[in-house]
Amino acid sequence: MADKITPRSEDYAQWYVDVVRAAKLAEYSPVRGSMIIPPNGFELWENMRNGLDFMFKATGHRNAYFPLFIPQSFLAREAAHVDGFAKECAVVTHHRLKVDEEGQLIVDPEAKLEEPLVVRPTSETIIWDTYSKWIQSWRDLPILINQWANVVRWEMRTRLFLRTSEFLWQEGHTAHATEQEAVDETLQMLDVYATFAEEWMAMPVIKGVKTEAERFAGAVDTYCIEALMQDGKALQGGTSHFLGQNFAKAFDCTFQNQEGELEHVWATSWGVSTRLIGALIMTHGDDKGVVLPPRLAPIQVVIVPILRKDGSEPVLEAARAVRQELTDAGIRVFLDDRDQYRPGWKFTEYEVQGIPVRLAIGPRDVENGVVELVRRDLGDKQSVPMESLAETIRETLDSVQQGLFDSAKAFRETHTHTADDYESFKRLIEEEGGFVLMHWDGTAETETRIKEETKATIRCIPFPGQFEGTDESGVDPISGQPSKGRVVFARAY
Amino acid sequence: MADKITPRSEDYAQWYVDVVRAAKLAEYSPVRGSMIIPPNGFELWENMRNGLDFMFKATGHRNAYFPLFIPQSFLAREAAHVDGFAKECAVVTHHRLKVDEEGQLIVDPEAKLEEPLVVRPTSETIIWDTYSKWIQSWRDLPILINQWANVVRWEMRTRLFLRTSEFLWQEGHTAHATEQEAVDETLQMLDVYATFAEEWMAMPVIKGVKTEAERFAGAVDTYCIEALMQDGKALQGGTSHFLGQNFAKAFDCTFQNQEGELEHVWATSWGVSTRLIGALIMTHGDDKGVVLPPRLAPIQVVIVPILRKDGSEPVLEAARAVRQELTDAGIRVFLDDRDQYRPGWKFTEYEVQGIPVRLAIGPRDVENGVVELVRRDLGDKQSVPMESLAETIRETLDSVQQGLFDSAKAFRETHTHTADDYESFKRLIEEEGGFVLMHWDGTAETETRIKEETKATIRCIPFPGQFEGTDESGVDPISGQPSKGRVVFARAY
Repeated sequence: MADKITPRSEDYAQWYVDVVRAAKLAEYSPVRGSMIIPPNGFELWENMRNGLDFMFKATGHRNAYFPLFIPQSFLAREAAHVDGFAKECAVVTHHRLKVDEEGQLIVDPEAKLEEPLVVRPTSETIIWDTYSKWIQSWRDLPILINQWANVVRWEMRTRLFLRTSEFLWQEGHTAHATEQEAVDETLQMLDVYATFAEEWMAMPVIKGVKTEAERFAGAVDTYCIEALMQDGKALQGGTSHFLGQNFAKAFDCTFQNQEGELEHVWATSWGVSTRLIGALIMTHGDDKGVVLPPRLAPIQVVIVPILRKDGSEPVLEAARAVRQELTDAGIRVFLDDRDQYRPGWKFTEYEVQGIPVRLAIGPRDVENGVVELVRRDLGDKQSVPMESLAETIRETLDSVQQGLFDSAKAFRETHTHTADDYESFKRLIEEEGGFVLMHWDGTAETETRIKEETKATIRCIPFPGQFEGTDESGVDPISGQPSKGRVVFARAY
Repeated sequence: MADKITPRSEDYAQWYVDVVRAAKLAEYSPVRGSMIIPPNGFELWENMRNGLDFMFKATGHRNAYFPLFIPQSFLAREAAHVDGFAKECAVVTHHRLKVDEEGQLIVDPEAKLEEPLVVRPTSETIIWDTYSKWIQSWRDLPILINQWANVVRWEMRTRLFLRTSEFLWQEGHTAHATEQEAVDETLQMLDVYATFAEEWMAMPVIKGVKTEAERFAGAVDTYCIEALMQDGKALQGGTSHFLGQNFAKAFDCTFQNQEGELEHVWATSWGVSTRLIGALIMTHGDDKGVVLPPRLAPIQVVIVPILRKDGSEPVLEAARAVRQELTDAGIRVFLDDRDQYRPGWKFTEYEVQGIPVRLAIGPRDVENGVVELVRRDLGDKQSVPMESLAETIRETLDSVQQGLFDSAKAFRETHTHTADDYESFKRLIEEEGGFVLMHWDGTAETETRIKEETKATIRCIPFPGQFEGTDESGVDPISGQPSKGRVVFARAY
């Protein structure tokens, strides 16, 4: 019953839509640009959230919750911020509906709000208004808070997970007594994101800093992790912003330092969103469907018993014993013993959903004390002994996790190119895709010209030693001006 | 530095405001009726959420996410539902702000939505629209889904946690092939709520059914758990609704049964919210602050080392060893080794916050191999040996948990009265408060008269055998008509 999946080579965008739908990860809702996330997609998000949340807490952060609605006037307080976010937001103007004389439900004109409220596109303004009340002294610092929330940025062209009007995310907002401490925090959280991307999502990333043009509205510096998708386009996986004292000044947030002087507080903010699910799908998926890394898969192992009309009891008994053994070993396992579906249907279903390991158990297997094991990433069948099965599975899951990372990294390596002149650059961007490393003179002028002519943007200026081929200084082939090092260009999501 | 707390006997409402603020559980935001939940409050909610989520998953439910925005027309589809929810909701009418000619930020009149969107007050409509697409056959049933989300119901008079415009909650929405299965689900989830209230929150509750007047807008039957607060007012802790086929009919959601006939799907919904935090505070709090049940307390044990200018290292060493031992035993412990605050300040701080157990360790304690233990609920000091400390603490936490429940239950017993005539009833409601059990003829007329004359409502019709003094039939003292059993009246939050 699995829906048809368009091959990637035929139409990558359609392939993406097909696998998201077929694996029941998300679907569009009747509200333009908003998505419904069914259990398969949401449980993946829960696992991502739990993994990140653990790391946030381990680095001293605590969760809190701030209001969904932001007074319109707050957005206007930070000059750069309003430019970035006022353009595309949901505005609440009334607080009541009523039934009119013709029996129709309408917005009650008498229930107009004195000041319109904006549904949060991000929470810097409401949070810095709050911090200005919480912070008086150096003793109140640092504040290390994270929020898991829904946010809304009105989008005209949407794609499930990648760009939706409402999405789920976390936003960290920290307050510090010194610039250095805030910068250290910004970089620490970028490291947390990079670790999560590589060790949990099996998705290699480049860490670097954004150019001014790509910076968060209101930040002094925006750091990011950039990943490469299978169609050769880049995807920004997460950002960590050093906000300087911009928001503290806009919201008059000062503290008395140990010398008794008043200073403005230093700030950071950092976030990742459900967009990461899109990145995960486009990093590992294949023409058969999604492929989930074991550390994040809601179901790591599915057991499909091969049932016969007569005598399926020994098979079910063996399947239940396997389920118990794996559960006891801390492995997330699901036994699909529904008899209204045939094994072949189930095989396809779990392949589409990307379950890392599938076990099948038939009467002959029970007699021989074995189970049939199929890895989702490789697709090969193995007969493995029931004995020490948990250990076999544990090793297999580790191997799948590592294998996915290695494949993605190999893909990135073969799709990273170096250009020494603009003609080669244009040809690479147009024909090859992927990351293209080229010298850049550091001006917005050159950056804009390249973007307009090729649709490629500077994904990041990699940290020193971060990415091979980007450390040596040279000359910008367009302007002829000196360049400190090659930067990473790509067309991007 | 702890803020002053008004005694309960002086002004209960002010006491509540004072403890919520002093314990840093919540505060008002600049947006009318919305609250900020700082880490102390949010971690309590996280623990409540985790406890409930575990029980939801153990009963076969999966989490999902549906859109924040609901098209205005959806609300109108179920007749009773629109009456209940259209009156008080946040309406999104525009999708952009712009800077006008005078440089002011305004709502862009050109960005008006074709159809206004309502910020979800509850999600039955958007979810049943979705289910109508998901469900075709009996094979697609049941659907057992829960959502953790923020919802908005515009409120003019708000109280932190108890009644706010935006609040956090969970809403379960299930779809079934038969009426019986849906009724069973409704009752099962009520049991989950009652278990959570009693075993986690240490808050005794009465399970029962609501009268028609108090029913959820769109339900066939609303079941509830009702608790009694220390000021003698009742608080509805959670509700579970049997929705019949009302929403399935409104959203044309049918399925083909095993005989090949089309039927409408049967529905339930059930929810609890951050309101439970208000209930928790008002069930166990005292004049010194909040009192948290150990199973939910973010910090179960706080260690305060008594530091001296010279030679505090042995004390800190002992404190760290205690922290390690308790952490290893799975106890949530916090060592407050900050030297800018004095021990007395810390004692008061954690008393206000309601940490169940406080340990103090001074130089003499280290020499004697003991620690000073103070239970938040009883306030008595004990000197306990360092040896087997984890076991002592474990027993103490269990004892605090049970003690809180027993006290709350004893309070409820002494504050439950029986009235056999209307004059006694009025006197009890006015002078004694608490639950008042009285016979009722089952008519809305009598119910309304009592509510208008005494402000008391029927909190619930208890299940048979649920609550002593409510099972015997009798006569309604107001109408003289027969009554099947006494029902529970009270003034309520």
